[in-house]
Amino acid sequence: MSPRLPARLFAGECGDRLRAVAGGDPGPPLTGFATAEERERLARARVLLTGWGSPVLDEEALACAPHLVAVVHAAGSVKAHVTPAVFDRGIAVSSAADANAVPVAEYTLAVILLANKAVPALAREYRAGRAAVGLLDLIEEFPGIGNYGKTVGLVGASRIGRRVAELLRPFDLEVLISDPYLDEAGAVALGARRVALDELFRASDVVSLHAPATQRTRGMVTAAHLAAMRPGATLINTARGSLVDQDALVAELRRGRIWAILDVTEPEITPPGSPLWELPNVILTPHVAGSLGTELVRLGSQAVDEVARVLAGTPLRHAVDPAALSVIA
Amino acid sequence: MSPRLPARLFAGECGDRLRAVAGGDPGPPLTGFATAEERERLARARVLLTGWGSPVLDEEALACAPHLVAVVHAAGSVKAHVTPAVFDRGIAVSSAADANAVPVAEYTLAVILLANKAVPALAREYRAGRAAVGLLDLIEEFPGIGNYGKTVGLVGASRIGRRVAELLRPFDLEVLISDPYLDEAGAVALGARRVALDELFRASDVVSLHAPATQRTRGMVTAAHLAAMRPGATLINTARGSLVDQDALVAELRRGRIWAILDVTEPEITPPGSPLWELPNVILTPHVAGSLGTELVRLGSQAVDEVARVLAGTPLRHAVDPAALSVIA
Repeated sequence: MSPRLPARLFAGECGDRLRAVAGGDPGPPLTGFATAEERERLARARVLLTGWGSPVLDEEALACAPHLVAVVHAAGSVKAHVTPAVFDRGIAVSSAADANAVPVAEYTLAVILLANKAVPALAREYRAGRAAVGLLDLIEEFPGIGNYGKTVGLVGASRIGRRVAELLRPFDLEVLISDPYLDEAGAVALGARRVALDELFRASDVVSLHAPATQRTRGMVTAAHLAAMRPGATLINTARGSLVDQDALVAELRRGRIWAILDVTEPEITPPGSPLWELPNVILTPHVAGSLGTELVRLGSQAVDEVARVLAGTPLRHAVDPAALSVIA
Repeated sequence: MSPRLPARLFAGECGDRLRAVAGGDPGPPLTGFATAEERERLARARVLLTGWGSPVLDEEALACAPHLVAVVHAAGSVKAHVTPAVFDRGIAVSSAADANAVPVAEYTLAVILLANKAVPALAREYRAGRAAVGLLDLIEEFPGIGNYGKTVGLVGASRIGRRVAELLRPFDLEVLISDPYLDEAGAVALGARRVALDELFRASDVVSLHAPATQRTRGMVTAAHLAAMRPGATLINTARGSLVDQDALVAELRRGRIWAILDVTEPEITPPGSPLWELPNVILTPHVAGSLGTELVRLGSQAVDEVARVLAGTPLRHAVDPAALSVIA
């Protein structure tokens, strides 16, 4: 992984645990499997602890790793560095996708609560006029705002979508969820109602995207979905820009009917000339909903627990199922 | 109450329940107790259902209300219209302060989650540069951000402070609470640790104010408290501007060490010339954390339930204790 990561992933007590589990300091991270020294370390490894920037584990690298029994990834998706050859050799793979889902769900909860209440719109109006709107005028102007009796639509019962549904339980909100792999009982267990994607867009005050970026989900949110959203509704995207027809999104946002809170766009870094920067009903954040700062220790901590399980011969708690790789992030 | 309120407080099914409980439509709201018609309606009333804009119930008004047994307020504080004479006559008083605490706590939760993660700062930097900060650079630049292992300090175990503590339970955050009326067991029951106010300001990554505005709490947050806050920490005020020494707050914010998210200031409407408008580390919202839009139905609904209890002769669930009036909002 990147040489800058270990100090953040394994900070404080988590680093002590890693050294205890590994029987010493694992040394500086490998950033490739090319040099003689890298191959020598790979040859001795029973477990690879990976993270952002890990080199690809292809057949050539695996040929140098005779003792490798597990790859424990201290980040979300293993797709960038774990090839089918890893699974073919029966090497166990673990990911910290569960731990990485937490901050995304938390960010989503926060912006759902603010979007339902039109706080971004109210703050913008306050700043523009530097005069408060009277409470009674607010009631007339924005009768539908607030977090009472509103409907939140979650697209995708992924780890993150499920965690958002759980976090929404203490609030007086109805939760709709749309996912081709979710059955009725699964939705009920999440405190949500399962609906088709079209209905979700029509019936929600806030729509939040939690589907994986796959060939199947590319452009799944169409112009028709966006046009069907309620006036004043908000689209939240913390997943991937590719899920949404970006031209249709810009066109719909230009009409001023709906709001968008976008932590990701396509391309992921919104280009300086994008109209999204100029629209008053758009809030852009720079792909920060995922693990940042202290949240990396949550990833590191879960990874250390997994390494301990491998070395103790107990089953992984966060094993990656190779059969599911095509439908997860 | 204001003539514009009933349609919002008693919308939909809640209005049906009100008419059922009252045995008919209560008619347009009284906005005074001065005219012959107003006094005639007051003379027949057993219960007054009050809200924002209700006229003051002083001895003169009470003299015209021989059948009055209860005042049910569909808003938070009764102090603006319920005088000691009301309690002296043994009239029961109910307030919707519990229901009104909910949206304030929800707003607070949302901004705590965003403040811990420095989302306002990251969004501002993104907008200014129109280029993302790389994740690994973010980790170096903002090592301490995130909602993992951080400390939230709540000033005041009021209804709102308690509800915020409850809402914070699903998160990996430590909660400190400071309140002269809270004992150790009370803090533990809230999942929080009781500390002195000075320690709370020193030890918290986010400080949120939930104390009532009384003579005793005026200026309780001093220059020394603000100077003791951690670099990058955020002060949230959804209570009242009077709690904070406003000059000291502006001075500390000018140093750029801390952030503030202020739903209230003093004066409550931040004057157009206030330096707060120009500071990049300040977010101002126009006193909107309380009940707005659909959230008014929560107030109305609780009030209708209370009216039903009065008429059924069962105890109020949200009775106002006159002895506590000096220490609550």
